[in-house]
Parts: sequence; C-alpha cells; structure tokens
Amino acid sequence: MLSSRALQQLSALLGTENVLTSEEDRITHAYDGTPLLHQLPLAVLRPRSAEQISAILRLAHEERFSVVPRGSGSGLSGGSVPVEGSIVLLTNHWTRILEVDERNLTAWVEPGVITAKLQAEVEARGLFYPPDPGSAAISTIGGNVAENAGGLRGLKYGVTKNYVLGIEVVLPSGEAMLLGGKSVKDVAGYNLKDVLIGSEGTLGVFTKILLKLVPKPEASRTMLAFFNSMSDAGETVSAIIAARILPAALEFLDQTTVRCVEEFAHLGLPTSIDALLLIEVDGRPAVVEEDLATIEAICRRHRAIEIRVARDAGEAARLRSARKVAFSALARIKPTTILEDVTVPRSDVAPMLERIQAIARAHGLLFGNFGHAGDGNLHPTCLTDERDKAEIHRAEAAFEEIFNEAIRFGGTITGEHGTGLAKRKFLERLTDPPALGMMRALKQVIDPDGVLNPGKVLTLKPRCEGPLPRDRQQVERFLALGAFT
Amino acid sequence: MLSSRALQQLSALLGTENVLTSEEDRITHAYDGTPLLHQLPLAVLRPRSAEQISAILRLAHEERFSVVPRGSGSGLSGGSVPVEGSIVLLTNHWTRILEVDERNLTAWVEPGVITAKLQAEVEARGLFYPPDPGSAAISTIGGNVAENAGGLRGLKYGVTKNYVLGIEVVLPSGEAMLLGGKSVKDVAGYNLKDVLIGSEGTLGVFTKILLKLVPKPEASRTMLAFFNSMSDAGETVSAIIAARILPAALEFLDQTTVRCVEEFAHLGLPTSIDALLLIEVDGRPAVVEEDLATIEAICRRHRAIEIRVARDAGEAARLRSARKVAFSALARIKPTTILEDVTVPRSDVAPMLERIQAIARAHGLLFGNFGHAGDGNLHPTCLTDERDKAEIHRAEAAFEEIFNEAIRFGGTITGEHGTGLAKRKFLERLTDPPALGMMRALKQVIDPDGVLNPGKVLTLKPRCEGPLPRDRQQVERFLALGAFT
Repeated sequence: MLSSRALQQLSALLGTENVLTSEEDRITHAYDGTPLLHQLPLAVLRPRSAEQISAILRLAHEERFSVVPRGSGSGLSGGSVPVEGSIVLLTNHWTRILEVDERNLTAWVEPGVITAKLQAEVEARGLFYPPDPGSAAISTIGGNVAENAGGLRGLKYGVTKNYVLGIEVVLPSGEAMLLGGKSVKDVAGYNLKDVLIGSEGTLGVFTKILLKLVPKPEASRTMLAFFNSMSDAGETVSAIIAARILPAALEFLDQTTVRCVEEFAHLGLPTSIDALLLIEVDGRPAVVEEDLATIEAICRRHRAIEIRVARDAGEAARLRSARKVAFSALARIKPTTILEDVTVPRSDVAPMLERIQAIARAHGLLFGNFGHAGDGNLHPTCLTDERDKAEIHRAEAAFEEIFNEAIRFGGTITGEHGTGLAKRKFLERLTDPPALGMMRALKQVIDPDGVLNPGKVLTLKPRCEGPLPRDRQQVERFLALGAFT
Repeated sequence: MLSSRALQQLSALLGTENVLTSEEDRITHAYDGTPLLHQLPLAVLRPRSAEQISAILRLAHEERFSVVPRGSGSGLSGGSVPVEGSIVLLTNHWTRILEVDERNLTAWVEPGVITAKLQAEVEARGLFYPPDPGSAAISTIGGNVAENAGGLRGLKYGVTKNYVLGIEVVLPSGEAMLLGGKSVKDVAGYNLKDVLIGSEGTLGVFTKILLKLVPKPEASRTMLAFFNSMSDAGETVSAIIAARILPAALEFLDQTTVRCVEEFAHLGLPTSIDALLLIEVDGRPAVVEEDLATIEAICRRHRAIEIRVARDAGEAARLRSARKVAFSALARIKPTTILEDVTVPRSDVAPMLERIQAIARAHGLLFGNFGHAGDGNLHPTCLTDERDKAEIHRAEAAFEEIFNEAIRFGGTITGEHGTGLAKRKFLERLTDPPALGMMRALKQVIDPDGVLNPGKVLTLKPRCEGPLPRDRQQVERFLALGAFT
C-alpha cells in the first residue's frame, strides 16, 4: 500500500486525475505481453514532465516504493510487469514527434510515440525509420529503446540502438541528463547511451529520444517461397547471403505456424509444406529487380516448391501478413502462448530448429516456430494452457533445454525481447561471471536503493549478509513465484 | 622504476626478450600520434596471451605500477601516451586474422591486425569491412575498437562500434571475459560491449575481436568538386543529403589544406579555390552511375567551378589521395601539427568553419581545415612550433574557443579521436554532471585501483579526502604538465 503521505504528495504533484488507484486501473496494468506473469501495482501514475518523473523517483526513495516504467506494455519478457510494492509509471501519453530535421536526418520524439506512427510520418517525407518490431503497430519508441527492439529489418538495417543518437533520461536518483546529440560521430567520454538503451527500465526513464533516420528506399518487392523441408529453407537463406545480398526481411514460418496462419487469415497458403520464407528486398528499383531475380533463382535451386511474388503494394502487404499475424494466429489455438526469442549464428538456424522440434516432441508439447531467419533470431512458441500445471512444467523444462542449446550453438537467450523477469536465470548461465559482476555493479552504482524496476534483468542480491530490507524481501518472494525466473 | 621483484617476475612470465627496458625502447614508446605529450614508460611489454596479460595486471596491483595498452600508437588524443609509473603493454604483434566466416559474415581477429590489411583480406573474398580511419594503413583493429575509430565512410556505413559483434577482454582485475558473439541480435543483460568499445584502454585490454562484415559494394566512383566559397560547398553537402543520397565519402578540404596538398603531392589541384569536396559513391553499378550524375548536377547548381570524375580505379585513388595526404601535407609546413576533431550537426559545418577561421585569425595562427563534411566531423589543424611557447599558448586558447563553439552548436569535442589526455577538460564542459558522475563511477567500479591507463578520459580524483597515494600524486603531477589537459 502507498502511505497516505505518498498518495497525497503524488496527487499534489501530478493532479489526482493522473494518480490512478482504482482496482480496474491497477488490474489493467498488472501484466504486459508476457504470459504467466502478473502483479497488481500500488498505483498507476501519468506524469507530464521530466521534472514530475524526478519528483516521483525522489519520493520513491523516501517512501520505499519501486517504480516500473511502462510504454504500451507489449513487452515479452516481463520488463514492465509490476513488482510487489511498485507503482507503474506511464509515458505512453507523451505522443508528440517534436522535430523532424530533414537536413540532419534526425527526429526528436517523446517516448510514447507509437513506432508505426513515426514510421508513417517520416516516410511521408521520403525518410525511413528502419527498426520494425513485430509490435510496431502498438509499441512505443520509449519501450523500443528500453528493450533495444529488433524486428524484421535487422539483417540489413540493424536494430533500435543503431538509430538512437541521443536520449534525455531521468536517473533513479531523480537527476536528469542528456546523452548524445545530432553529431553522427561522437566518442567523448564513455558510451553511456548504449548501456541505457536496452536496460529495460532498470537504469533510467527516457523522456525524449533523438533518432537517426535514413533515406527511404525507393522500391521494395516482397515474395513468399515454400519448401518441403526446413533444411532446404535454411540452405536458401545461406545461399542468399553467400550471393552477397542482404534482404530487408528474411523470415521463416514452420509447418505448424503456416497452418495456424492459414486457418486464421485465409491467405491461400499450402498447409502441407514444411517451411515458408518471406523475403523482402528494397532499395533502388533497378537493384531491387535484379536481387529479386537472383533470389528467385536461388530458391528454385534449393528446391522451393512454389514462389509467389507480389505484383503491387497491396499484394505485398498480403504476403507480409503471413508473417505479421504468426503470433496472433498461434495464440488462438490454446489459452496460453509462450513466445520465446533465442538467437543462433544464422548458419545454425536449421539445426537449431531441428533441436527445438525434437525437444518439443520429447516433452509432448505443441510448438510453432517462426522468426528472423536472416538474423538467426528464432521465436519458438509453445501453445499451452496455464491451468495445466503439469504441461506448464514440461514447457519450462523444454525452454530450459532450448536456451541451453542456443548457448551451445554460440547464440544468445534473447535476440530482441530482453531478459526481463523471464530469463534472468538463463542470463546467469550465458554470461561470463566477470561480466555478470560488472552488470550487477553497474545497477548498484546507478540505482543503489533498487528503486527502478528492481529484480528485472538481474536477480536481486542482498547488499549485506544480514536479512533483506522489508520491501526487498517482498520482491524476492514475488519473483520466486514467477514462472521461468 | 620497476622494482627488481617486478622485473624478475615479468621476465619469468614473458621471457626477457619480451620485457623491453632499454632507453631506446622506452623512448620510442614515450609518445603516440598526439603532439606535445610524452612520458617515458618504466618498460615495454610484449605479452603473448590473454593469460599473460592477466598476470601482468595482477602484478600491477601488487607492485603499484600502471598499465597503458598500445597498438600502433597512432592515436591523436594521447590515449596510449604513458603516464608516470606505467609500463606500456603492446598487442601490435598479435596480427592473425583467426577466421573469416563467410556464412555468418564475421571475422575473428587478434587486436594487432592492421586495419588496411583486414580490409584487403576480406575484400579479396567479396566482403567489406567499412570503417576506414585516416590511419588505416598503420592503425590496429585493437586500437580502432579502443577509440571507436571513425573515418571516411561514417556517413553511409557508421563507425567501428557498428561492426564489433564480440570482444574477448581482460579486465583491470586480471579476469577475462567474452562479450557478444555471432548472433547479430543480442539483448541479453546490459550492453557492456559498447561501453568497452571506445573506452580508450581504461576499462579493459582486448585480446580477440569479432567483427561484422558486409557484402563488398560492386562498384564505386570518385569525384572532386572545387568551389569558390566554403558556404557553396556546405550547401552542396546539404543538397546531396536532401536528394536522399548517402555517399560512401563526403570530405572537404579548405584553401590552406588544398595548397599544402598540391605542394606536397602535385595532383594538379587549383590552389586559388576556397573549398574542395571529395565525393565517393558505391553500391550496385546502375545506382552508382545514377547517383554520380545527380551529385554532379547538384555540385554545378551550387556553383562548383570544376568537377573531376575518376575514370578508373587508379585515377580514383589519385583523387582520393588529395584527402588522404591532407594531414601529412599540413604537417610539413611547421614543426608541430595540432590536429583536432570537433563535430557539429552536419547542417552547421559551414558556419562552424567560419567560426574556426575567425578564431584562428584572431589569435594570429595558421590553420588548415579538412574533414568529414557528411558527418559534421571537422579536423581544424593548427600549424605551429612547440618551441614557441607564446604561440602554443595562443593555440591552446584558440582550441578552447573552438571546443566551446562546437558545444554551442550542439556538437561534440571529439568525433573519432577520443578524449584521451588532450580533451578531459572539455569533456567536463560538454557532459551533464550526472553523466560525468556515472562515467567516474563506472571507471571506479571496474578499475578501483586505477591500474589501467589512469587519468585518461577522466581526470583522476582522490578517492578519499586525505592525501593522494604516492603513485597517484605522480600521475596528477605529470598530467598537470601536459598541454591541453
């Protein structure tokens, strides 16, 4: 419970209309996009300025509550799920694009700007913001930066951090600072900006973000290729790269996913195939046509049983939707959908998928697999029911094996969703102990009282040998209950 | 002086042939590419493995000497200049390219690999390592990563950090760790890799580096354009960007630099012009020709008085050399060349250059200016004589004004050379106090005893109120003597 003093001060600071404490408001902010994790926050706050965020964080120290920043809450690793004794701090109502600087190819935005809205806005000016997370239609730029979101265009264009030139951030202490600026080259001092990017709301709250834009590609072509075996699809991906082509998207769906997509969206996909590749090339028209022809030939050479090339933008959107609806289509099958995010070197996509399928079979689980084949970034997705405790335990065991396999392949436990609550245990397995020590030290130095999103990314550790302080104990207890923690 | 125990242990560890203590060896490692800064090291070490580096760092704690890592020593901010009581740790003899993985477009290299050698090696396989610092012919990849080196291709391709997928690093404690890997997407835990990149040898010693490669552009065209005014050249740069073209290089030289280059290299450059642009476009042949034509038209529209387009690779290299020899050509004029590295938003290049020229005039100094117009990254270069104390003081005053102007334009004090010793004072002026505090805390956490390259990037601060420990006092005294500190 927030003390009456805290409530009073928050109301005075933000206005009562921006301090939400009703059951409804708390319940709707008790979870994010991650299955199995939820916790009621003490309150939900809607600050209007960086100064108000500073004041909230200062009060959090005094009143010993924690602060969990949240954009759209579309995260998939529990990054914005409240912890016990926390308030949720919203920035999704800060939705202004403050400046698009066409001379410097930059945009200043507020953290609550929806990714797809920014994309549309800059594309209308002949510019391009490449990062394209699956949740772009609802995710916020602030959330994208907090998670270092990836998406479909990673292979050719990179991820969110490659497009963040500057951030205005409020630290857990309540101090504010600006990092970076419009200079595209800047090596003054240590690169703090790139640590805050992807820090999952544990090191600071972003209040303004300066993004880098690029010229919009003039043309783009989209195709689907169907294969009778995943290894044919995997070899096709390798052959495209070997031909020195970097497509703007190079995505795959496995049979289960294709079937669910077809049932859901009626795109006329052949449901007997083992693998589907969605390939998109963009750039100057002449090059795009050339690449398209090369890729078609490569697909045929690797036993594609059918290829569909979109003739216009409408058809391209239709083909693209085969990939875009994958998650929603899978989510219809069973009450609970556990979507994961392992990454392996792209040359190991096919063998890794084989391992995932074998693991799912061994545990008697239904898995759909899809993801970014060009990035080696796979989304093995378990279709289950959280009321079936035994199956959930088998799913946990399966994912544990999958993470171990990814590590064995020299990959990582998360390519774009973050560590959050869901993968802290595996972070410890993946990471060399000195690096883990440095991560802990970094959090400790920036947020010594653990006020900001505590227990995310890293497990909490007592700072001394004695008993944990009261609120830390509660957090640990909560975390012990969470799945996959 | 190293204690005899330390010397004995180092000799036993590395072999006497790898512990260089002669006057000649110490003198040749007393400076790097930065003018006015030099300090004799206690010894120069040539370790052969990460384990030996660990042992050296452990011994440094016991014996209270500092360790200054060094590649080719081509740095321009004093990053590898020894500090008093330090040994120099060389890695420039680790010159193996360990693996080029054509399926994943990656290369594992040792830190001593020469940048140009790596470029040539991967280009022979149809791949491309884009970062191209001016010193590429002599600089090492380890040094490039330590400084987050930039270069000519920043506008289109980014800088070194955009191509580092993984690093194996020995921490000041002597612990070793691996960060990153072949997964092109990886958001597990905090992004420590990008803090170590550009940390100028103050947070760790790199022992292996995993680089990202891209397909080699099929074609490339190079041109020079001459202008009667710098503002015409500046407008040309803006117009090229506004036409949604990102050239692979977009460089400028001012009149003084053009004259020095012509005198030095006899390229047939008109010496009465006010500005020269070197423009390079690369990519697929059809696009390259299209872009070249567009850029030519833009140059003419902005009053270019002459344009030279290279007809073949030989001629391109000749035109490119106008920019490549700029520093050497300027350095012949006077005994001391102070090359700086301010960056402003690219839309402010022309006004910033006007300010630099006015400042140089006001202080009665001879300046040549050149740099990366497309990045807003300028290299104002003062031609002076370090024996003329009065002129050196005027140069210091002029650079102070120039840094202040860069900050006023929303730019930065260093785009690619690093903070090192030379720009610590200006880092403090540029950086918000909480960020500076975080940088200090980071160094403190990773290197609490200040063993690794102390006093670089950040000024040393006593860790307690009492008198400084002996060796720290010496370092502070040395630093107080350095120019521009």
